[in-house]
Amino acid sequence: MLIGTKRTDAYFIQKLKELQANFPEVEVSYGDALKINDVEVLITSRITNEELDKASNLKILIIPFTGVNNLPLERLKARNIALINSHAHAPIVALRAVTLGLALLGRVVELHKQLEKGMWKGFDETSAWTAILNKKVGLLGLGAIGLNIVKYLEPYNPHYITLSRYQSKIENKHNWTYYDTIDELCSNSDIMFVSLPLTPETKGIIDKNILNKMRDKYLVNVGRGELIVEEDFYTALKNNMLKGAAIDVWYQYPEKGRINLPSKYPFHELSNVILSPHVAGMSDLTQKLVSDEIIDNLRYYFENKRFKYTVDLDRAY
Amino acid sequence: MLIGTKRTDAYFIQKLKELQANFPEVEVSYGDALKINDVEVLITSRITNEELDKASNLKILIIPFTGVNNLPLERLKARNIALINSHAHAPIVALRAVTLGLALLGRVVELHKQLEKGMWKGFDETSAWTAILNKKVGLLGLGAIGLNIVKYLEPYNPHYITLSRYQSKIENKHNWTYYDTIDELCSNSDIMFVSLPLTPETKGIIDKNILNKMRDKYLVNVGRGELIVEEDFYTALKNNMLKGAAIDVWYQYPEKGRINLPSKYPFHELSNVILSPHVAGMSDLTQKLVSDEIIDNLRYYFENKRFKYTVDLDRAY
Repeated sequence: MLIGTKRTDAYFIQKLKELQANFPEVEVSYGDALKINDVEVLITSRITNEELDKASNLKILIIPFTGVNNLPLERLKARNIALINSHAHAPIVALRAVTLGLALLGRVVELHKQLEKGMWKGFDETSAWTAILNKKVGLLGLGAIGLNIVKYLEPYNPHYITLSRYQSKIENKHNWTYYDTIDELCSNSDIMFVSLPLTPETKGIIDKNILNKMRDKYLVNVGRGELIVEEDFYTALKNNMLKGAAIDVWYQYPEKGRINLPSKYPFHELSNVILSPHVAGMSDLTQKLVSDEIIDNLRYYFENKRFKYTVDLDRAY
Repeated sequence: MLIGTKRTDAYFIQKLKELQANFPEVEVSYGDALKINDVEVLITSRITNEELDKASNLKILIIPFTGVNNLPLERLKARNIALINSHAHAPIVALRAVTLGLALLGRVVELHKQLEKGMWKGFDETSAWTAILNKKVGLLGLGAIGLNIVKYLEPYNPHYITLSRYQSKIENKHNWTYYDTIDELCSNSDIMFVSLPLTPETKGIIDKNILNKMRDKYLVNVGRGELIVEEDFYTALKNNMLKGAAIDVWYQYPEKGRINLPSKYPFHELSNVILSPHVAGMSDLTQKLVSDEIIDNLRYYFENKRFKYTVDLDRAY
C-alpha cells in the first residue's frame, strides 16, 4: 500500500516512518518523490481536480482539518474514495471560541483601540464590560468543539442552552435548558457559540428573523461564515440589533499576496465586532495534535482494515 | 451613628434603607443633604484633604475598591480612622486577567488590526497563536484575585507556579511548583499573572533583571502599574526580551476631558501589547457585588461592633 503525503514537517514524517516500520506492506512517498499517480492513500490539505484525475489509484483521502465544504465531494463519491477529516483541532477551536467570546464581552479590542489614542472611555463606570459569570450561554452545534466550550466555561457558572436534539450528548443534566428551534435558542441566550458544519441544510440557518431578536446578545462564530446570512449579519451589527460578534469564519478568503477584506460588507468599521482571520485551529499545539491523530487513524486502519470514522459524503460532515 | 454616602445609585440606597430599618440608631445622609462635618462613617470612592479636615467626626472610611495606594493613609492613621476597602471585585478582576491573558496568547488584538486592513497574517501555519492548554501559569499575588484566576484556568490543565510563601493558601497541592524568589517564578512560567497590591515593598518589584529572563514568556498585570519598572517594561517588550504583555494598570492616568496616553513610553506602538484602561473591576456585575459587600460589612459592624477586616495602614493593604 502506497501512502503519499504533502504534510512533510519533520515530526509527522518521523512518526510516519515509525509506523511504517511496524507494517512492512506500507510504502511512503512525499516531496519531490511523491508518486501521485500510484498513491492509494493521500494526506493533503488541498487537492485540485487535476491531481484527483492523476491519482487514479486513490482510495483514501486524509485531510488535516474538519470542514469539508471546499472539497470536491461529488467527485470523491463518484470514485468511491473515502474521505477522512480531522477532529484533533476541537479543543483548540473551542479555546479560540472561548477566547473570542471573553474578549468580545470584555470589549478588549474596542478599549485597546481607544487607549492607543489616549482615550480612557472604559474608565468611568457607565461603560462597563460584561462578565460571563452566571450568564446564559447558547450552543448551536454540540460536537467535539461545543462540548469543549462547555468544559472551558464551567468555572463561570453558566446556564447552558441548546437544541433539544442534542440532549443525548449531555452527561451532566444540571444547568441545561433545551429548545426545539434555533429561533428560541438564540433569543434566550446572552451569548451564542456557533460551531455547526456548513452543509446544504445549515447554510444561512441564522438570518435576520433570528438576529432581530438578539438586541442585547452576543454571538461567536467558529463554524463557517455562510451559516449566517452575510447581509443580515452586517445589518444587525451595524444597527445594534445584535449587540456584538466575534467572527473567525468569513465570506471572502485571501488570495495569495492580495489584500482581502473578509466580507463585501464593512464589518471592519464596526466597534462591536472582533475580526479573527480563520485561525481557530492554528495554535502552537495543533500540528502535533493533528499529526498524532492521523498516525493513530492509519495504525487503526492497518490493524482493522477500516477507519474509526469517515466523512459522510452525502451529509458533508 | 450618622452614615454619609457618596455612593448614591438606586440599588445601594435601597439596600442601605433596608439595613437602617433594622438598626434604629443609624442615620443616613447623602446627596445635597450629605453632612460631611458630622458623619462617623463615610462611603466614597475619593476624599480630598479638605473633606477629610471637615469630617472631624469621621471614624470609618469605606471605599468601594481594593487598592489604597492613592489614599491619604498617613492622615487616616494620625486621626485613627479605620479604612475599609472592598474585596468584592476579586472574581471580576480575575476574569479580566484571564480574558486579557487568553486574548494576549491568542493574538486577538494584533490579528484583528491586521484583518481590518485585509491582511490575513495569522492564516498561514507559521504564525500560530499560543494555546494555554498544559502551560506553566505563574501567579505573583495569590489573594482573592489570584485564587479566582486559578479557578478559571482549571479546565486548561495548567501547571501552576507561585512563591513558597503562598503555599499555605493552596488547598489542592497537585500541579503546583513553588519557588522562593520572584526571579525563579517569572523565569519558569509561560505566562505570569501579576495581582500584587502596590506598597513600598512591592514598588518596582519586577525590573529588567527579571524581565530579561522572560524571552518566550507572557505577562498580565492587573495589580498596579508601578509594580513593574516602567522603562524596563517598555524596553523588554520593544526588544522582544518579553514576548508579550496585557496591561490593565498604568503609570499615567487621565485627567478629566484630556487625552492621556497611559505611559510616557509608547507602549501603544507595540504589536505584542494589549492595552486595557484600568477596567478590571468594571463589569456589569460589579456595582451589585460591591454594594452587597458594603451592606454586609455594615450589618456585621452594627451587630459585632467591629469589621470583618480593615486595611492595615502600616502595610497599606
